Amino acid sequence: MRMIDLINKKKHGESLTGAEIDYIVQGYTQGKIPDYQMSAFLMAVYFKGMNTEEISNLTMSMVNSGEVVDLSGIEGIKVDKHSSGGVGDKLSLIIIPLCASLGIPVAKMSGRGLGHTGGTIDKLESIEGFRTELSKEEFINNLNMYNMAIVSQAENLTPADKKIYALRDVTGTVDSIPLIASSIMSKKIASGCDRIVLDVKVGSGAFMKSLDDAVILARTMVDIGKSLGKTTIAIVTDMNQPLGHEVGNANEVREAIEVLKGNGAGDVTAISLTIASYMAVLAGVFPNFESAYKGMGELIESGKALEKFKELVRIQGGNEQITENPDLLPQARKHIEVKASESGFINSIDAESIGVSAMLLGAGRKTKEDKIDPSAGITILRKVGDEVKIGDTLCVLHTNLPEWDDAEKLSKGAFSIKNEKPAPIKYVHEVIE
Amino acid sequence: MRMIDLINKKKHGESLTGAEIDYIVQGYTQGKIPDYQMSAFLMAVYFKGMNTEEISNLTMSMVNSGEVVDLSGIEGIKVDKHSSGGVGDKLSLIIIPLCASLGIPVAKMSGRGLGHTGGTIDKLESIEGFRTELSKEEFINNLNMYNMAIVSQAENLTPADKKIYALRDVTGTVDSIPLIASSIMSKKIASGCDRIVLDVKVGSGAFMKSLDDAVILARTMVDIGKSLGKTTIAIVTDMNQPLGHEVGNANEVREAIEVLKGNGAGDVTAISLTIASYMAVLAGVFPNFESAYKGMGELIESGKALEKFKELVRIQGGNEQITENPDLLPQARKHIEVKASESGFINSIDAESIGVSAMLLGAGRKTKEDKIDPSAGITILRKVGDEVKIGDTLCVLHTNLPEWDDAEKLSKGAFSIKNEKPAPIKYVHEVIE
Repeated sequence: MRMIDLINKKKHGESLTGAEIDYIVQGYTQGKIPDYQMSAFLMAVYFKGMNTEEISNLTMSMVNSGEVVDLSGIEGIKVDKHSSGGVGDKLSLIIIPLCASLGIPVAKMSGRGLGHTGGTIDKLESIEGFRTELSKEEFINNLNMYNMAIVSQAENLTPADKKIYALRDVTGTVDSIPLIASSIMSKKIASGCDRIVLDVKVGSGAFMKSLDDAVILARTMVDIGKSLGKTTIAIVTDMNQPLGHEVGNANEVREAIEVLKGNGAGDVTAISLTIASYMAVLAGVFPNFESAYKGMGELIESGKALEKFKELVRIQGGNEQITENPDLLPQARKHIEVKASESGFINSIDAESIGVSAMLLGAGRKTKEDKIDPSAGITILRKVGDEVKIGDTLCVLHTNLPEWDDAEKLSKGAFSIKNEKPAPIKYVHEVIE
Repeated sequence: MRMIDLINKKKHGESLTGAEIDYIVQGYTQGKIPDYQMSAFLMAVYFKGMNTEEISNLTMSMVNSGEVVDLSGIEGIKVDKHSSGGVGDKLSLIIIPLCASLGIPVAKMSGRGLGHTGGTIDKLESIEGFRTELSKEEFINNLNMYNMAIVSQAENLTPADKKIYALRDVTGTVDSIPLIASSIMSKKIASGCDRIVLDVKVGSGAFMKSLDDAVILARTMVDIGKSLGKTTIAIVTDMNQPLGHEVGNANEVREAIEVLKGNGAGDVTAISLTIASYMAVLAGVFPNFESAYKGMGELIESGKALEKFKELVRIQGGNEQITENPDLLPQARKHIEVKASESGFINSIDAESIGVSAMLLGAGRKTKEDKIDPSAGITILRKVGDEVKIGDTLCVLHTNLPEWDDAEKLSKGAFSIKNEKPAPIKYVHEVIE
């Protein structure tokens, strides 16, 4: 087999066999296929696409390039969730205790933030003492005893995906649905779960700008899951504004606690309960979505969900007092109010600008090596549809840095204010099963 | 400017500005842009194409990446020719003396053979003493005194094209008309000529398999020439069989002499006279093609063309006796007759198989470092349309190597014999001005 022939085959729109895809993926991961051939191949995939069989084979080749987590020692149906990345997305912090308190084992491997997006691991580490590195034994043990564990993604999971993603990032081949879908699914499958709920964001702040594209991506991933024997449901959710009111690490933990207390914003509450409900349905705890959603509401009302979150913090070494007293979370010294300079209705809030602003305030990383400030972030006071007058505070920046001019400008510019009240935002656009 | 943005721009089908193309070409040549970004870009060009302005800018960027030959010291309109590559293509050996004997200065820079294709420089070097490395002074001097000089292509001509071509070769991006056209035209323009006649081959043995593609390539190059102020004519000629009867180095010199004596095969005579005629028209020596073609015939009949070839050999240090006694050219010790194993009419002769066979006999190079045997080659005895009976000799292999089994099988397989007589081959398919 020669890489040049496989590049040409894909270039001419032909389908590749499983053996051919495996040759490419393993060859590239092992350094036998050079970057310049791989990038030409990826660009050909961008233009010519892949069918479900090819994408499934690509996914499994990437899974097989590294370690696969063995969750066979854990009883029950292991359900995982994944979000395609957003700003203010603290959903895992809410969903894990909800599911775990129903006896569904959730073995979560999460990442750190980069650029304008945050990471669940960073958020949890804003809690004093919280450990995100657990031994294998502790991980399995916690899952068996408490039905929940959350750790940093293992280094040796899907090395092929890591190497391919790094190349895509610099060669204009990120926005290819087969490549996005296989990248996400390979990580989920390598994490060892049985069933998957995917949160595919759509809107100005999401990677998928149009509903059509988001639905195609969702459908592609559900099909891969099916063809690989991992039942998958994808929910297409709105990202025309940051999720909830808080962006930043400690900030978002605080907001997750509010949601678990029943005081969450509409969007973040609706979406987290929807995802948790589909996870519960996949786990067989509820017969249908409606009963599951009702069940989730009851877990919040009864205080059981918050209690479970407190347990999560405790068993991973964190200071559980923060659930009763969120002021124990790190707090920035400076708070800058960003004011509206025109009146009208908030039409959209560019999530990416808010994400970058938060990064500039210290909440995120420009490069992987950067340190983050857990107390930095942004509180969004006005959301899409809200009426504002000149001088009203749109958001509040929290930082310990000496300069915030750029973040102030950028976050202010994120708010688009128009004369007419926009149509109400749908939080959940589509559910693909 | 960032390469990633330019990749995305082309990927989305947008046109690039001259400054953007120059950034890519010079950046890549200077090693500032890595191979993997360039190959992704080239694949995007394969799919999205380029308009005439972009291709002209690409051509000039490649010209400007290296030295440009200064022919201003030579009087008259300098006309150059280029062939898109074939098997048995000894046309330059015939055309240069024809044009030079009319007073048209032809400053020819040629290449060496690689793979199944031959090179004019290798062919001339099969003549004892012939020097293809001339000093600048000798080159200019010969042109002013004799209107002809033929040398190896300078090392520092279009380094961008060399580097880009090497990358295209291993990334499936060779067969892109904008890239082919700019590669050819950049070399011609860097060679310093005023006007250009292009010989675009079409057929099973050519890079362009279909007439449509060949015409598009021809039209593209003529348009580039126009937009850069170098009047260009392209002739689309047939390559459904090797050109003439001889393939190999000394072999082809021998056949060129036959053509100049008026004893050439139909195809090689017609095509060489056609190209030379258009060159003479571009140089202003004849008012139109018909009169030029007649003039070329007279140069052959009168013996002037052969005399001029003899002069070319002499002034570049070669043994001019070969023109009277071609047996002085190197001759192989072994001659193997390849026989027909069925009767019928020759329907086609796969030029690439014949080219590879000649290479296997010692006439060509597998890699740039290989040495060639000037006496090795193949004499094609039967051409398309000829009737053959079982046992008739199709071709004769000439070699000094101990083994010729592979070449025998391959060359035999090149002849497709069918029951019905094929339609007569058109030697010149189209002329694009």
